[in-house]
Order: sequence, then C-alpha cells, then structure tokens
Amino acid sequence: MKQLVSVLFITLSLTAFTQTKLNVNKQRIESRIFELAKFGKDANGSGYRVAFTKGDIEARTWYISLMKKAGLDVRIDYAGNIIGKRKGKDPSLKPIAFGSHLDMVPDGGDYDGCVGSIGALEIMEVLKENNITTEHPLELIIFSNEEGGTIGSMAMAGHLSPEGLKQKSQSGITMAEGIKAIGGNPDSIQYSVRKKGEIKAFLELHIEQGGILETSQIQIGVVEGIVGIVHWEITVDGFANHAGSTPMNMRKDALLAASKLVIAVNEATNSVPGKQVGTIGKIAAMPGAYNVIPGKVVMGLEIRDLSAKKIEELFLDIEKRAAMIAASSGTKITFDRQPSSIKPALTDKAVQETIMATAKKLGFTYQLMQSGAGHDTQELSLLAPVGMIFIPSVGGISHSPKEFSTAGDMANGTTVLLQTILKLDKK
Amino acid sequence: MKQLVSVLFITLSLTAFTQTKLNVNKQRIESRIFELAKFGKDANGSGYRVAFTKGDIEARTWYISLMKKAGLDVRIDYAGNIIGKRKGKDPSLKPIAFGSHLDMVPDGGDYDGCVGSIGALEIMEVLKENNITTEHPLELIIFSNEEGGTIGSMAMAGHLSPEGLKQKSQSGITMAEGIKAIGGNPDSIQYSVRKKGEIKAFLELHIEQGGILETSQIQIGVVEGIVGIVHWEITVDGFANHAGSTPMNMRKDALLAASKLVIAVNEATNSVPGKQVGTIGKIAAMPGAYNVIPGKVVMGLEIRDLSAKKIEELFLDIEKRAAMIAASSGTKITFDRQPSSIKPALTDKAVQETIMATAKKLGFTYQLMQSGAGHDTQELSLLAPVGMIFIPSVGGISHSPKEFSTAGDMANGTTVLLQTILKLDKK
Repeated sequence: MKQLVSVLFITLSLTAFTQTKLNVNKQRIESRIFELAKFGKDANGSGYRVAFTKGDIEARTWYISLMKKAGLDVRIDYAGNIIGKRKGKDPSLKPIAFGSHLDMVPDGGDYDGCVGSIGALEIMEVLKENNITTEHPLELIIFSNEEGGTIGSMAMAGHLSPEGLKQKSQSGITMAEGIKAIGGNPDSIQYSVRKKGEIKAFLELHIEQGGILETSQIQIGVVEGIVGIVHWEITVDGFANHAGSTPMNMRKDALLAASKLVIAVNEATNSVPGKQVGTIGKIAAMPGAYNVIPGKVVMGLEIRDLSAKKIEELFLDIEKRAAMIAASSGTKITFDRQPSSIKPALTDKAVQETIMATAKKLGFTYQLMQSGAGHDTQELSLLAPVGMIFIPSVGGISHSPKEFSTAGDMANGTTVLLQTILKLDKK
Repeated sequence: MKQLVSVLFITLSLTAFTQTKLNVNKQRIESRIFELAKFGKDANGSGYRVAFTKGDIEARTWYISLMKKAGLDVRIDYAGNIIGKRKGKDPSLKPIAFGSHLDMVPDGGDYDGCVGSIGALEIMEVLKENNITTEHPLELIIFSNEEGGTIGSMAMAGHLSPEGLKQKSQSGITMAEGIKAIGGNPDSIQYSVRKKGEIKAFLELHIEQGGILETSQIQIGVVEGIVGIVHWEITVDGFANHAGSTPMNMRKDALLAASKLVIAVNEATNSVPGKQVGTIGKIAAMPGAYNVIPGKVVMGLEIRDLSAKKIEELFLDIEKRAAMIAASSGTKITFDRQPSSIKPALTDKAVQETIMATAKKLGFTYQLMQSGAGHDTQELSLLAPVGMIFIPSVGGISHSPKEFSTAGDMANGTTVLLQTILKLDKK
C-alpha cells in the first residue's frame, strides 16, 4: 500500500456549478467503443473476447495504455483485476471506486461491460483535462472474467475458493491458469481481497440488457438491486412407449406433462405483481425420436428476483402446480435445486438517491429499476455501498452481436456517473 | 423356380373336424422364444439382435436348422429373406405364406417378431407331426431387417431402391453390405421381387405392442389395417434474450409457444373420435441454457391413422391451432413434411372374416383393431390379400426389454393362425 502524497499537487478548487458544466466527449467514447470492439473479432466480425483469450489480453493491454495516458497509477492485482488510481486531495480518505469489465461472452456484443469501462476511463480523462482533483482518491477497476462468473470481483470480495480456481473457464484453461495469463497470481489470490469498509463507494455504469428503458423512453436507470438467481433441474418421468401402437388414453407422455409445466411456470410467474422472472431455458426429451412417446424430460428452471423470499414463494407455487400436473398425467415431477444459486444484492439507498438527484439536476428522465443480470457490483456490495447506472439497450438485446446503445445514451450515462462521483466526493 | 412334384407324397385327408382338434405345443413355443432371446444378448442381458449383426446371423442359422428339421425346403432370397417351403397336394395352386422377423431394435424385447416367427415354425411342426398336407403349398417367410425399415419385405414388393441399399443400417454397415452378410445378394436384388397375385394370401402373427387387448381382456386382435405415418419437423422461431433482464411481457419465448403447441397437438388428436394418434416425440430448444430465453425450438410431429384423409384433416387442425399460438406469442411456426411418410395398408376383408370366424369357432374373444406399428405385412399387401393376428402385450410395453406375452396367448395366436391357414386352404 503506497502512501499517497498530495502536497506536491496544485489543485483547482472548482465550484459545484462549474463541475456541472463538465462535458464528457461523446465522440471519444464512441470511437473507443468501436476500437475496443476490434479485439477478439475474427475475420467474419464475430466477437470472441472471452476472458483469458488473446483478444481479452490485447484489449487489456490497450486499455492499460489509455489509463496511463489519463495519468493513472496502474497495477494488476493477484486476481487479474486492473486497478488504476488517481490521487485525491486527502490521501487519508477512502477511495471512490468505479469500473466494469472488458471480457465478453462468446459471440457477444460490443457494449456489455465496455460502456462502463470506456465511461470510467472518460471520467478520468475529463478530470485530467479540467485539472480537477477530487477530495477522495479515485480507483478505476476493470474486473477479470466477469462473464465467467464475476471471478475478479469475487476474489476481491474474498470468496473465490480454491475449487473455483480449479474450474475450467470458457477459454478452455482453468481460472487459475487464466488469471496467471493476464498477469495475476492465483497462488497469492488471498492478497487481492479488499477489507470491508475500505472503499467509500463503488459505482458501475452498464447497459440495461433489457428493453424497459427504451420502451418507456427513459434515459437513465437507477438500479435498486441485482436480482438473486436460483436454478432447479426438473425431471419429468413418464413412460416411453411405441407412438404408433399406444392409444392416446394409455400414454404417460413426459413431454406433454413437461409442456404443461412450462406454461405453469409462465403463469405462476405472471400471477403476482412485481418484476420477478421465471424461465425454462433448456429441455431434453428422452429417448427423442419421432416414433417414441417421451418417457423422460429434463428441464432447467431459473427464477430471479430482488427478494430471496419472493423467489421461494414463486417456487412453492410452481411446485404446487407441478404436483397437480403430475397427478393428472400419471407422471412424476422432481425438482433438484442447483448449487449455482446467487443471493440478491441491494444497492445503497443513499447512493441511489445521489444518482437520482444527479440525473434530475442534469435534466435526464430516470427511473428506479432492478438489474436482472448479474454484475461485479453485487460482489462489491459485500465490501462497500454500491450503485449502478443503466442506459438503454436498443431493442433490449444483449449477449448478442446485435447489442447496441447510442453514443448519446453512453455520454448521458457517463455524465451521470461523473457527477455522482463528484457529489459523493463532497459528502 | 423348382417344380413341385406331389405324386410321391402320401397325404392324409383329414376332416375339418379333426383339424380343429390340432393342438399346438405351448411349451415348445415358449421354450423356443426363450432360446431365440439368447441370440445377441450381452453379459448384462441387454438385447442387441439388430439386423445384420452377429446375434441376428446366429439366430437365423439356428432358425434355419429348425425349419429343416420341420421338413421345409429352405432358401435365402437375394434380399436375405429366409423362405421355407412345404409342398401342397396341388403344386399348381398359389402358396399360402406366413411369417415374421427375427431381428430386433437395440435393447428391444423378446416377443416383437419372435412370436410370429416361432408361431409360424410351430405350425409347420404340427402339420408334420399330424401328417397333414394342405391343398396349397405353404411358405414360411422370415423377412430381413424389419426393424430397420421393413427392408426384406420392401425388396420382395419391388420398391427397395438402389439409394435404399446404400443407406447405413443400425448395425453400422450399409443395407447392401448387411444383406450380403446374411447370405443375400444386393446386386441381384431385383430377382427377390414376387409377382403381384402369385401368393394366395399372407398372414402374420404378432404381439399387439399396445395395451388395448390386455386392458379390454380380449384374446385375439384381428387387424383391419396398418396405419399410415406422416412426420413433420416443426420449427418455432421466437427471440433469444437474457433471461434475467428481459421482463416477462417483453419475451418471444419459443419454448413457451412450443409447449402450447405440444398441448394443442394432443387436444387436436383427441378432439375427434377414432384411433388416430399424434405425438411430439422429440424437441430441442436453442441455445439451451438456464439463463437464456429459448429463441428457437425444433420438434418432431408424427401422426398415424388408417385413413390418409384423416391424417391430413388432423394436420390441418394442428396447423390452424399453431397459427393462433404463433399470432398470440409473436413467434413464427413452420411445418416441414418429411419424406419418410408411409401410406396406410388395409388388410383383406375376406381374410379378416376368416380370422374372426376361426377365433369365434375356437372360443376366443376377439376384436377388430388397427396396427399402430408398421409390419412386413404392409409391404406384402402390395402383392397379395393379407391378414394379421395380434395377441396381448402385457402392460402394452414394446420395443423394450420389459416386452412380454404369456405362453397361453402365444399358443392361442398360433392356433388361430394355423386354423385360418387351414380354412383358407379349403377356399
């Protein structure tokens, strides 16, 4: 831990009014988004900047050079997170941190993670260009392997296990090997853990990855929390039989019962007010032939909500509906809760209010909303008060090459993030 | 074509009364079923007597030796069908043919095909033991590769194409290679074709492969026809999106729409009286992950009925229901008819009546029914008047190691087949 010395710095004390006038550079944001998008693209334009791959490493190298140009003191922690520090006036104050991630899902889009990363860099550039020194030190953090399970932020929050390090990442190598490949050190991963309370606040700018903001023509989403996720493997046991010689009334068709359950999941999820989502995303019917009545179906159920209690209530309703379907169809339906469940993470009320006040002052339309997708912010919520700023995703499309956000929206989100940081800095 | 000479035979002319007293040997039938079941069984008792494999070849060799012991003149035709001839009093009369198949589906049961094969052999034994010579010559036919698409009977009916011979069989080798392996000659396959009208009648004894006879406690099923089969590949196009960040009301969930269609297929099939069956036997949802709303679903639809017209009417109803589901869910549903469709094959009315009169006279309960499964008989129906006799399948189970029929039912079916042959012989 290097001691920060601020006495040698000549800082400009700007009024809040002047700071509100600070302009982020929309063109620079967009051109950097386009530049970043090239890393990991193949000849056909398909993106594969999966964490720990060549594209990821090249993007990180490029990004680090820009951080340095923006005057940051850059280091890579033991978990492979990139941390760029900017001194504050008072080195004894806790740092305000913000950032996102550069890695992407296979054949993903150019905005998920990228907007928050480029936006965070833009803020450092604008502060430098305007000779502004904040009271608090600032930290720009780029987390390693977000898409592979928020690995970098999990390590920072202190619960990346030795087993987790041994798991294969999507790049084909283990998490440990990947972390080594990007300059971390898995053997010393415990030293990447940050102490609870040592960060004043963590903020992340991100695309919505859904269609709510665009549909309701709202410019800024203020995230009230990141939903919890629970997965169940559902097995429907019927009886496989000859599809020609078994009359309709003598069947125990597992797929017919499973289909009723898919609809029941949808109906149960829609039967109560709220933002909960319930999805059957995968299904397999066995033996799987035109001429055999399916004897067994295995499906994947996912429920997400900001309230763990609501997830459980919804699951109980689904279980009840499943029991009725099983009884009426002569099948057996079992639910197997998966160990991959994630608890909901709430953002900090005071930070939410600061973001809303900032958006309002800047004249942007805004609304409170939940994040249906997971983010590094949920890990950081274990260490510090957190907040998230969403901007619209055109068509609500994400994790797809069709993912898109306008330069205007990216600049708006970056401006809100900048002004929120400056407001938190004064508190 | 060897000329049959009957003058040297001393034949016993028995009255119809005496012939009705003929007893088949129930113990012999059952012990031969058990013996046949051993061919192709692995150490765990799993059956793999797929056509053209070692187990199939061994079973055929064993069966041929029994045919010879029963006094038959045995040859293998160019398609690998085994034909055992028994002379009649009048060599100018057309032969009465009967038989089934020895091959099985992978991990199938010990009765499908076997009961008809062992029953046919039993008839030849009983005739020999009782010194009966029929008026017409008799032919016991064991068809090659029934389970792989009624290959042997298709060749006999003259429409096994050169392309069909090139296709891979379930054994891993081509149909042509398989036919060669069992003593046929694929290069001369055209010489295995029988002329339309040269066989007086063809009869097949078979297990029901469904639960109708057992449930209604009927001993004998008199088959009115073998259903036609049409397959469609159904594609449901929705929109794949993030299962966390896409609200319930903004989804175009292909699996939800597909599930409604699975239920619609069931409801449409049950909405009209009759024995038609409609099955969705296979399904795949893409991309197929807990956290992605399925964007595309591909399913297999099969409809079977004795009436080709009814199949088309049912399909039109399903198409109409699919259009409504597509409209209300924002998905696109398309149907692609597969080239594998099979036309219905009706059995001969006079043969049906002979079987019913025989069953009645023998004191068996019987009913007219359709065959939902395909059989070699449907190919033979292109050449001669045909009939089929069904016996109960315990639990309606087929194409499974759990397939079972009692020795009593096998003996009953064999007796009906024997007496039907003797009645047709007098006509």
